Amino acid sequence: MVHNGIEYGDMQLIAEAYDLMRHGVGLSTREIREIFEEWNQGELRSFLVEVTARVVDFPDDQEGGDGPLIDKILDRAGQKGTGRWTSAAALDLGVPVPTITAAVDARLLSSMTEQRQRASGLYRPPVIGFAADRRETVHRVRAALYAAKICSYSQGFSLLAAASQARGYEVELAELARIWKAGCIIRAAFLDEIRAAFGRDATLESLLLDASVRDAVASRVATWRSVLSLGVELGRPLPALSASLAYFDSFRSARLPANLIQAQRDYFGAHTYERTDREGTFHTDWSAE
Amino acid sequence: MVHNGIEYGDMQLIAEAYDLMRHGVGLSTREIREIFEEWNQGELRSFLVEVTARVVDFPDDQEGGDGPLIDKILDRAGQKGTGRWTSAAALDLGVPVPTITAAVDARLLSSMTEQRQRASGLYRPPVIGFAADRRETVHRVRAALYAAKICSYSQGFSLLAAASQARGYEVELAELARIWKAGCIIRAAFLDEIRAAFGRDATLESLLLDASVRDAVASRVATWRSVLSLGVELGRPLPALSASLAYFDSFRSARLPANLIQAQRDYFGAHTYERTDREGTFHTDWSAE
Repeated sequence: MVHNGIEYGDMQLIAEAYDLMRHGVGLSTREIREIFEEWNQGELRSFLVEVTARVVDFPDDQEGGDGPLIDKILDRAGQKGTGRWTSAAALDLGVPVPTITAAVDARLLSSMTEQRQRASGLYRPPVIGFAADRRETVHRVRAALYAAKICSYSQGFSLLAAASQARGYEVELAELARIWKAGCIIRAAFLDEIRAAFGRDATLESLLLDASVRDAVASRVATWRSVLSLGVELGRPLPALSASLAYFDSFRSARLPANLIQAQRDYFGAHTYERTDREGTFHTDWSAE
Repeated sequence: MVHNGIEYGDMQLIAEAYDLMRHGVGLSTREIREIFEEWNQGELRSFLVEVTARVVDFPDDQEGGDGPLIDKILDRAGQKGTGRWTSAAALDLGVPVPTITAAVDARLLSSMTEQRQRASGLYRPPVIGFAADRRETVHRVRAALYAAKICSYSQGFSLLAAASQARGYEVELAELARIWKAGCIIRAAFLDEIRAAFGRDATLESLLLDASVRDAVASRVATWRSVLSLGVELGRPLPALSASLAYFDSFRSARLPANLIQAQRDYFGAHTYERTDREGTFHTDWSAE
């Protein structure tokens, strides 16, 4: 089932890349089709990128219809519940999968059609228009998509490892990557990278800790940041792309502001905290100063 | 229990604001204490902002300790499970609460201490330093925190409304806001705004659709975007602040890229889709072009 959670993440990330290029950069569906065709020749090669190229510029097939079919399709994404199941299982196991959950939430939000219509009348989009170089921006979106995808898969495989351990499944993750490559919806070139990573270290706790994956992400992070900033400024909703970056920035931070949360919890609930410089559990008399 | 989910969101948003001011802008704990004291006199007035002012610059209380205690507290946030419960209940009811879930995930990530230490050695933070006006940035962080908080409460109250309806509780949301104001951890000036909003319309589907709440958010959105961009460029992890903005941008969008997701689903699974221009359920023969 985790497969389907990862699939949700992939589809949402691709949808955000499409949205940014279409409504942020202002490209046509024809141009976007060519871009996805090109992407499908490289590191992003995957069934879902191929499908995107096939559907994004497909002509309206209704009698009297014209223009791309995609513009006539209602933006209300269905779900059969497998994505939600993955998010719920992750919560249960205590494994963060923010990109997958963002993708589930994005589908739920897409279904709130009537509320969104009303809200769109109340809130205007930013007045700032796209002013950067189109070609360069497309190049950047490609890098952002790949880095965000890696972080999403990293979450999914950490969940698989935790579930396997908790339930005694003894899943071989390298083998799983091989099987998925053979014919499922998320089949992709990137699964070879995953297989290689778990082949190098079967007990790898996170894909992001593999040296080769690390290079793939590290070389794209600055670009990824610029893409997210662009989307934020233009008002394009990028829930999965931003959840992936927040996951990455949290994961690579030796220190997080959770120390403040621990202080707050000790203040109002005497929940105690640990210290960085000595063993033990501590409680402070916060009224003592 | 939704109360605790909202509390998680509040605490995480405050922690992100603290982190950005401390490690992004480079302010001292003394300065940040004064900022939270000032914020506690205005629209952000709340028990948790007051607590933050009290703990953030509290001196180390251990024998021989010096400097602020906060710097010695281990950044591993505990949780008793009520936040997770809120996220799980929301998934179950199909209500998106991305800010609350981001706060739960942030605590989970904070507990991955050993992996984070290793990752921090593999990935360098951005080399860009803070170069904007400090005073102006603090002002902006205040606006971002308030807008993000409103979006988080909007999610929480939408969840309450859905739960109340699904389970026949008939919760009066205006009354609930009054009760929460009286003495719980999330007691805050903002609950008066919520009470007023549900007083004006007891069936309000989303706080973001209330005219007064709308003005409070709309007047801060541009600033909020700039704060998030700053954090993204500086590499500060802002999971809740960015989840709130993505929620807002999705919610206020009359059209989302879920049409692409529907096209993909119809392509590989014949899941069918709806159209914007005519009634019914449609399936396309994607091989026909």
